[in-house]
Amino acid sequence: MPALTPIEIRAEDLDRVRYDTDGLVPAIVQEEGTGDVLMMAWMNETTLRRTLSEGRTVFWSRSRQEEWRKGDTSGDRQLVRRAAYDCDGDTLLFVVEQEGRGACHTGAKSCFYRAFGSDA
Amino acid sequence: MPALTPIEIRAEDLDRVRYDTDGLVPAIVQEEGTGDVLMMAWMNETTLRRTLSEGRTVFWSRSRQEEWRKGDTSGDRQLVRRAAYDCDGDTLLFVVEQEGRGACHTGAKSCFYRAFGSDA
Repeated sequence: MPALTPIEIRAEDLDRVRYDTDGLVPAIVQEEGTGDVLMMAWMNETTLRRTLSEGRTVFWSRSRQEEWRKGDTSGDRQLVRRAAYDCDGDTLLFVVEQEGRGACHTGAKSCFYRAFGSDA
Repeated sequence: MPALTPIEIRAEDLDRVRYDTDGLVPAIVQEEGTGDVLMMAWMNETTLRRTLSEGRTVFWSRSRQEEWRKGDTSGDRQLVRRAAYDCDGDTLLFVVEQEGRGACHTGAKSCFYRAFGSDA
């Protein structure tokens, strides 16, 4: 089983993250190696801290209004290999090792499987 | 000069895009070839249509509350090579050819140049 690798939680990093009026920040998830963008979901400060300390992605589900530990149900965990924040601190990027079939609840590897202007 | 390639605007695609209460949808921008995630910004339906019809990214600036034609000031345009929407239709992904120095207003190529837990 692949190793979970915690990332050090530093105040200087967390202080730079800006949350929206709902206390959430968008988190992009990209696959290590292929570079495929797998999905985008949301985190609050609690789930961001859990993601860093546990080394796997934990989101906040806006529809269910609850913590969403990615892979607990599906088995498709995302093991974090790099975590970054952008220049404005209002978007996060996680480079992960994707377990299982993929990231999308439809069964697709990436949630971005439909292209504008194309049936492919 | 690289070619601008419009993408066909189809009702079946646009109808699947869901905007937030401000009429905006997050748009991830990824570099073609390297796969680097360059930035994340926001679009409304008008700037999404412009992005597709012109073949370069056009965003909505939340801070300035105005259309933001990426590269008009900096020269760092983003030429769209693929445009996708996710399973829920609430996030967009643009794979682009990035002109100029890069995507970030700091001069960095990617806005995600700072990693959690690392000074690198």
